[in-house]
Amino acid sequence: MNKKIPVKIYLTEDEMPKSWYNLRADMKQKHEPFLHPGKLVPCTPEDLYPVFCKELVKQELDQENRYIEIPEGIRDFYKMYRPSPLVRAYFLEKLLDTPAEIYYKHEGNNTSGSHKLNSAVAQAYYAKQEGLTSLTTETGAGQWGSALSMACAFYGIDLKVYMVKISSQQKPYRKALMETYGANVIPSPSDTTNVGRKILEENPTTGGSLGCAISEAIEVAVTTDNCRYVLGSVLDHVLLHQSIIGQECKIAMDKYGIKPDIIIGCAGGGSNLGGLIAPFMAGKINGTDDTRIIAVEPSSCPSLTRGKYVYDFGDTGKTTPLMKMYTLGCGFMPSANHAGGLRYHGMSPIISKLYDDGYLEARSVEQTAVFDAAIMFARTEGILPAPESSHAIKVAIDEALECKKTGQKKTILLGMTGTGYFDMTAYIAYNEKTMTDYIPTEADLEQGFASLLDIPQNKQ
Amino acid sequence: MNKKIPVKIYLTEDEMPKSWYNLRADMKQKHEPFLHPGKLVPCTPEDLYPVFCKELVKQELDQENRYIEIPEGIRDFYKMYRPSPLVRAYFLEKLLDTPAEIYYKHEGNNTSGSHKLNSAVAQAYYAKQEGLTSLTTETGAGQWGSALSMACAFYGIDLKVYMVKISSQQKPYRKALMETYGANVIPSPSDTTNVGRKILEENPTTGGSLGCAISEAIEVAVTTDNCRYVLGSVLDHVLLHQSIIGQECKIAMDKYGIKPDIIIGCAGGGSNLGGLIAPFMAGKINGTDDTRIIAVEPSSCPSLTRGKYVYDFGDTGKTTPLMKMYTLGCGFMPSANHAGGLRYHGMSPIISKLYDDGYLEARSVEQTAVFDAAIMFARTEGILPAPESSHAIKVAIDEALECKKTGQKKTILLGMTGTGYFDMTAYIAYNEKTMTDYIPTEADLEQGFASLLDIPQNKQ
Repeated sequence: MNKKIPVKIYLTEDEMPKSWYNLRADMKQKHEPFLHPGKLVPCTPEDLYPVFCKELVKQELDQENRYIEIPEGIRDFYKMYRPSPLVRAYFLEKLLDTPAEIYYKHEGNNTSGSHKLNSAVAQAYYAKQEGLTSLTTETGAGQWGSALSMACAFYGIDLKVYMVKISSQQKPYRKALMETYGANVIPSPSDTTNVGRKILEENPTTGGSLGCAISEAIEVAVTTDNCRYVLGSVLDHVLLHQSIIGQECKIAMDKYGIKPDIIIGCAGGGSNLGGLIAPFMAGKINGTDDTRIIAVEPSSCPSLTRGKYVYDFGDTGKTTPLMKMYTLGCGFMPSANHAGGLRYHGMSPIISKLYDDGYLEARSVEQTAVFDAAIMFARTEGILPAPESSHAIKVAIDEALECKKTGQKKTILLGMTGTGYFDMTAYIAYNEKTMTDYIPTEADLEQGFASLLDIPQNKQ
Repeated sequence: MNKKIPVKIYLTEDEMPKSWYNLRADMKQKHEPFLHPGKLVPCTPEDLYPVFCKELVKQELDQENRYIEIPEGIRDFYKMYRPSPLVRAYFLEKLLDTPAEIYYKHEGNNTSGSHKLNSAVAQAYYAKQEGLTSLTTETGAGQWGSALSMACAFYGIDLKVYMVKISSQQKPYRKALMETYGANVIPSPSDTTNVGRKILEENPTTGGSLGCAISEAIEVAVTTDNCRYVLGSVLDHVLLHQSIIGQECKIAMDKYGIKPDIIIGCAGGGSNLGGLIAPFMAGKINGTDDTRIIAVEPSSCPSLTRGKYVYDFGDTGKTTPLMKMYTLGCGFMPSANHAGGLRYHGMSPIISKLYDDGYLEARSVEQTAVFDAAIMFARTEGILPAPESSHAIKVAIDEALECKKTGQKKTILLGMTGTGYFDMTAYIAYNEKTMTDYIPTEADLEQGFASLLDIPQNKQ
């Protein structure tokens, strides 16, 4: 193919996907079903309705339909900030002096600052359609909370955000952004819920965790009229919405005859990675495509690389359905030291299953090395990346340098999930050399794994 | 023309301008020449070489060539983040229930956060070409400093940024961003320069001003080897570089047969507005085009609407060449209360001349009304705007509401210069209702005008 490839590939509006890509339809083996936490049998839709919007439950349980149409209302919103550009990182390649070709999909050019908006819009849209008046959610680093605040402001839905306490302290401006969009932001654990009060009683000085915040948000949703809970990662329907990322990449790459040899994404709950790889997995699964896929996680919260593939709760309060996933145990308390997101104890069941079946690799990287990579990227590509995204950048640079050694001209596709505008505290720590690395000891991990022992499914 | 217009119009790489548009070539009457501050005669290139890069001096003094080629190196950098999208604000229109069509040119989707990068890249490129090793500059709200830090990191040039003290205190993260890109950021006035020490002696508690910071940056540039000063607004060559904005707009609009009835831009030093209107002015000047152009400035720093059109210094220390411009007097100290940029005492000589000749309108708006408009825009269009840009948004909304009254279907083009990620302190003040408005009294203005009386040209 000889078409001249622009530095930034933008799809036209007509080329944009009209359906989400349901990766599960391509999986020969589906992941294990969610189990009702009390009855320990697979969840029915009715079990989930008190917590989630109906349409999202339907999407969550649909493992058969490959394409799920994106409603026109959502596509109209997408058109305000999508397609996102697929960019060739020429200047980074030049600095690395690598034969590798590096492309990054830049999801940070909307002012929520990340890919999270793709699912936030969809979830707020369905809530509005179903006549709900309020939503609750949790946020860690704040990207999801920001995106959902923006979406709820747009659709006129009240929003309560439980924000991991340590993040709300480290990121006052992130909190202010959500409040600017009209959200009510509550540092978690808080005394506004039973589960929050219980956690505070046991551990009054805790900085909180995503797991705690989820418990609080769910409690409020199920005890408030016309209110549901929404989640920004982990669940299948969130990965479904994020498939817009991978589909835009694939359409753009196919258009110019580019084929990725390696796809790299950061993985906290797995939504960005799951969305990025969605349309590329079919070939991997049926054996016609040997693209390598690398999930990158922080050494400080290594659910794929050091976790167990078992049933676990999605939250610390043990209120969610049980999901089979790679997990550090819902009792695992991530280090407060780690900048940014990717601090979740578990991992998307889809990503977990694909990893367990050998379709993905996983790699963990340390914080200061991640920021070294972030700075290199910022200075050559003119984009200040979010710490989360920088995990993927770090591994992309490693792979490009490996190509330099071997002389192989590989094509690398990298998920650039967001910008670092609200992570300046972490950048300041890096600039001032006060940033440190943290790797949990075996004893730290055992403490988290202990929480798994109460779950009957894990006792065989 | 029946071509379907997408919500966001992106030019292809091939459609991007290969030259900047030199608006002065279209002006029947050029603005008055810069005067040497000592000799009071028009500046020669040699007068300017100690301060500015040679190529920039050449561009500054070129009033004849309509097109000035953009070097390939700069175009390669532009391709990393340009073209910027021209977006139809459908949802804002819907909320306003206006027959007007509102388009905004979104210059905030690069991580320097604003249009300032367009000139920063150019200036750093020429400095590198000319073998300079360091640059100095000033920054107010921090957009220019951020953009230049990014450009200097890219080209490997040392940078010293004098940042208005009150801004550096209000915006620690903006400072951190520049430092992440390797810049040395010094709150101004400082004790690192003679002029800074003098200003501090006279007024030890001052929060500083752009005028002070310029004086300090120039002093360092002219007393350091291989170092020059660069400015992010006001000067003709900066407006020249910013013409990329207007040209992209014009090409995109021509492509789809759209003709703006009103063009609205915020004006602090005038670079954004000058760039936005560059290719639209020829028709205005030769009388074939009746597009209205509105410059919007804050009521707290009303150089066009309440200033004098006289010769003045560009800085507080009275070290720059004299420029004939609309000014509040270089001794005018803008209110610390005002959020964001647009706090400069003077105005681009080009914009001043066009305004004086009746080709532009000017309007001043108050801060809280500007933030009302910003929030409305953020919630409908999904972009958190910078306070500067929000001045233009405010007037665009006013004009759209006027159309609603009269039933006229006007096309409004709005310069959306940047994002508000680093202005959260101001948004917090707005959210908490502690934000206030400030309008200088006649006595306040007289104090600023007093500084103009020493200038012989103003004594006739």
